[in-house]
Amino acid sequence: MGRWKPDARGRLERAALELYTDKGFDATTVAEIAARAEVTERTFYRHFVDKREVLFQSNALADVLARATATAAAPLAPLEVIAHVLTEAAPVFEERAELVRQRQAVIAANPELQERELAKLASLGSSLDRALQERGLDSATAALTAEIGIAAFKVAFARWIDDPDQHAFAQHIRETLDATRQLTAPAEHAAATDDTSLQDQENGA
Amino acid sequence: MGRWKPDARGRLERAALELYTDKGFDATTVAEIAARAEVTERTFYRHFVDKREVLFQSNALADVLARATATAAAPLAPLEVIAHVLTEAAPVFEERAELVRQRQAVIAANPELQERELAKLASLGSSLDRALQERGLDSATAALTAEIGIAAFKVAFARWIDDPDQHAFAQHIRETLDATRQLTAPAEHAAATDDTSLQDQENGA
Repeated sequence: MGRWKPDARGRLERAALELYTDKGFDATTVAEIAARAEVTERTFYRHFVDKREVLFQSNALADVLARATATAAAPLAPLEVIAHVLTEAAPVFEERAELVRQRQAVIAANPELQERELAKLASLGSSLDRALQERGLDSATAALTAEIGIAAFKVAFARWIDDPDQHAFAQHIRETLDATRQLTAPAEHAAATDDTSLQDQENGA
Repeated sequence: MGRWKPDARGRLERAALELYTDKGFDATTVAEIAARAEVTERTFYRHFVDKREVLFQSNALADVLARATATAAAPLAPLEVIAHVLTEAAPVFEERAELVRQRQAVIAANPELQERELAKLASLGSSLDRALQERGLDSATAALTAEIGIAAFKVAFARWIDDPDQHAFAQHIRETLDATRQLTAPAEHAAATDDTSLQDQENGA
């Protein structure tokens, strides 16, 4: 296995993502991941329970969200707490943008991994819900705020992953939350727009 | 199996939900479901692929959502489309409230079924997204509107399921969407509230 190198865990993760990308998740074995990372299989199992866990290892995000929710300044409105929390979480993704994009492509190619990802997002939503209640929000408001927060996170994340201009994740979060405010603002039926013109617009779309 | 009775599918569904509730989902067999419904196993398999499918059979909801999105009046703002769509979907649940509550308790008791339920909700979100784009919304707005719609649906559904006063699902939808508008309205930092008083409030909570 050659001489000892530092950061076995990081090398295992990068090796796994390369193999999942090249060969597919199902066709990759732990032995191959260990060989590419230049460690033994035993070392792999010291860091991860199985090859799926390489993709879903991190409680880092849940920790960041819970801490940011607890420490957000007191007079913030619920959606401002969400804005603060998601902005605090942005570096978790930006610092490892390339690995995050690789990981997302692997998950998108595999329905079983997608279900696992949805379960993980739902569990993030529950953590956010609890953290909001600990801030003093009533349970109905906390549940709704948490769901809207996760909805905004999903949309901002998808925009960031697909952004050809590679704008910062934090910018996509801001834009998504601004769009949320606009979407949910009381509708003003523009006086200048009557049914016919909108119909034309839709037909042209 | 006694004389022929109508509505084999409905009886199979009710029998399955009773058994899942009494014995648990894992411990129930298709043979038991068929026996309780007074049909043969062959009849069960004419209606359902397996015992899980009894819980996730219906495309009715996706159809209702897509049709309601397509037919909502043209000048509605995105959140008003969601309000219309969810209100149209309410009877799907209210007409069979008892079965829906039984089903939800079975799913809540089983992590594997919960993952399936999350996947189904995500797929409803995708249908809603497509239907909104077909109305002429740009893809960014459609994606965000669909996610917020599913978030509001989840919260309204949970409130309805747990409501001791059994108010109508449509009412929970209205209240949840009103709360969404309030939550996401631009914050007004109440002049009367300073940090200290809010702090006191939170400590007292």
